[in-house]
Amino acid sequence: MKEEIIYGLNPVSEALRGTRRAFELFTAGTGTDRRLEKLLKLAAEKGVPVRKREKSDLSRLCGTEHHQGVALRVEGYSYAELGDILALCRASTEKGLLLVLDGVQDPHNLGAVIRSAACAGVQGVIIPRDRAARITPTVEKASAGAVETVAVAQVVNVAQTLEELKKEGFWIYGAADDAGDDLYGLDLTGEVVLVIGGEGEGIRPLVRKKCDGLFSIPMRGGVSSLNASVAAGVALFEAVRQRTAKK
Amino acid sequence: MKEEIIYGLNPVSEALRGTRRAFELFTAGTGTDRRLEKLLKLAAEKGVPVRKREKSDLSRLCGTEHHQGVALRVEGYSYAELGDILALCRASTEKGLLLVLDGVQDPHNLGAVIRSAACAGVQGVIIPRDRAARITPTVEKASAGAVETVAVAQVVNVAQTLEELKKEGFWIYGAADDAGDDLYGLDLTGEVVLVIGGEGEGIRPLVRKKCDGLFSIPMRGGVSSLNASVAAGVALFEAVRQRTAKK
Repeated sequence: MKEEIIYGLNPVSEALRGTRRAFELFTAGTGTDRRLEKLLKLAAEKGVPVRKREKSDLSRLCGTEHHQGVALRVEGYSYAELGDILALCRASTEKGLLLVLDGVQDPHNLGAVIRSAACAGVQGVIIPRDRAARITPTVEKASAGAVETVAVAQVVNVAQTLEELKKEGFWIYGAADDAGDDLYGLDLTGEVVLVIGGEGEGIRPLVRKKCDGLFSIPMRGGVSSLNASVAAGVALFEAVRQRTAKK
Repeated sequence: MKEEIIYGLNPVSEALRGTRRAFELFTAGTGTDRRLEKLLKLAAEKGVPVRKREKSDLSRLCGTEHHQGVALRVEGYSYAELGDILALCRASTEKGLLLVLDGVQDPHNLGAVIRSAACAGVQGVIIPRDRAARITPTVEKASAGAVETVAVAQVVNVAQTLEELKKEGFWIYGAADDAGDDLYGLDLTGEVVLVIGGEGEGIRPLVRKKCDGLFSIPMRGGVSSLNASVAAGVALFEAVRQRTAKK
């Protein structure tokens, strides 16, 4: 069985609350910290043994010093299947809202986008298997643990996946700086897939062709583009706004 | 005169286009890179001498390896005065939109927020002088150079500054997770100041008291809060949306 080490207070806490099997919690700290106390309680409830270690041991184990004194050995991350995400959409009382990331390369960006997507209540995030960041402990940390609360599917062919989602009744809207229409002209109250491109390059041509519509976020200042996680946040929360207003 | 080293392709490019005096451009690279070529052209136009250096020299100069082979020695960053920002508001054909950051500590977050603010076309960003990140080359890099395109003022007392802005006719809205009203219920088409709190702790009580209204961004998922730069982006672009719709 594949295993991995998750680190940082938020990610470890979310992982202990999540569905993955946890084997051991490593801590380096005084135990007087409130957030650490909460973790220890959570670990006790779940029957996860706790091992005291030196800070430097944790740094070696995690491959980074940004572990905040906690690390958890857990079963490896399991991606969702596209079918699982569609089942979550069907089970939801809300209209489906999915996010497709076409080639985000930076693990910090991927984590930040997944955090924004989780906050907006998407039923799933879809990422390509090749030439894109995948879920790692760094992504987990950057997502503040949101990776544990939202389904993420890895697909071989994004364009083909969009074709499948169209057949399921989704409207596909892609972000593109050069789009004539702006985000605020879209109707995002139905079953919607938002597609955001990778850093710098945007959505790939083949994926772009599969979109029912393209939108830009209107830029007011001298800087050309938003960070991918902010762009995703602005687009996702425009969907939240429209859906809230409709009720 | 205070000087500093700016590094990274975007920040150096924005700095060369900006108003600061630039003294020397250091490069480590082949010169066949398109973006580097553009920089060299920009430097030549501005009469900034170019010095070839080893990659390791640049790393030492910048104190980091993330310089992308370029560094620029420039005059130190100058903060705007509150009066300058108010003058920009008066000169603008749009209603004033300002962002106050009450104690963002992380330089990467500060840079990301300034980038979002610049994209939304704010007339200025206001940060506290104490217990908050200030503008450094790291912030510059994280903002993708947006620090050069938007006025940033440092103030001693945020609460008092909000009082002054009220007298100038601004409405002050603060982000708070526990606010009863949500962002989408606000009228952001007038002269508006948005206040976003620091990581984890939110807006301080004294600052909170000065707000005309508090708002939350409605969270749909299991994760409790957005990253500060995404929260700022969502709030700022809601103002952009309302102002675009009004025209």
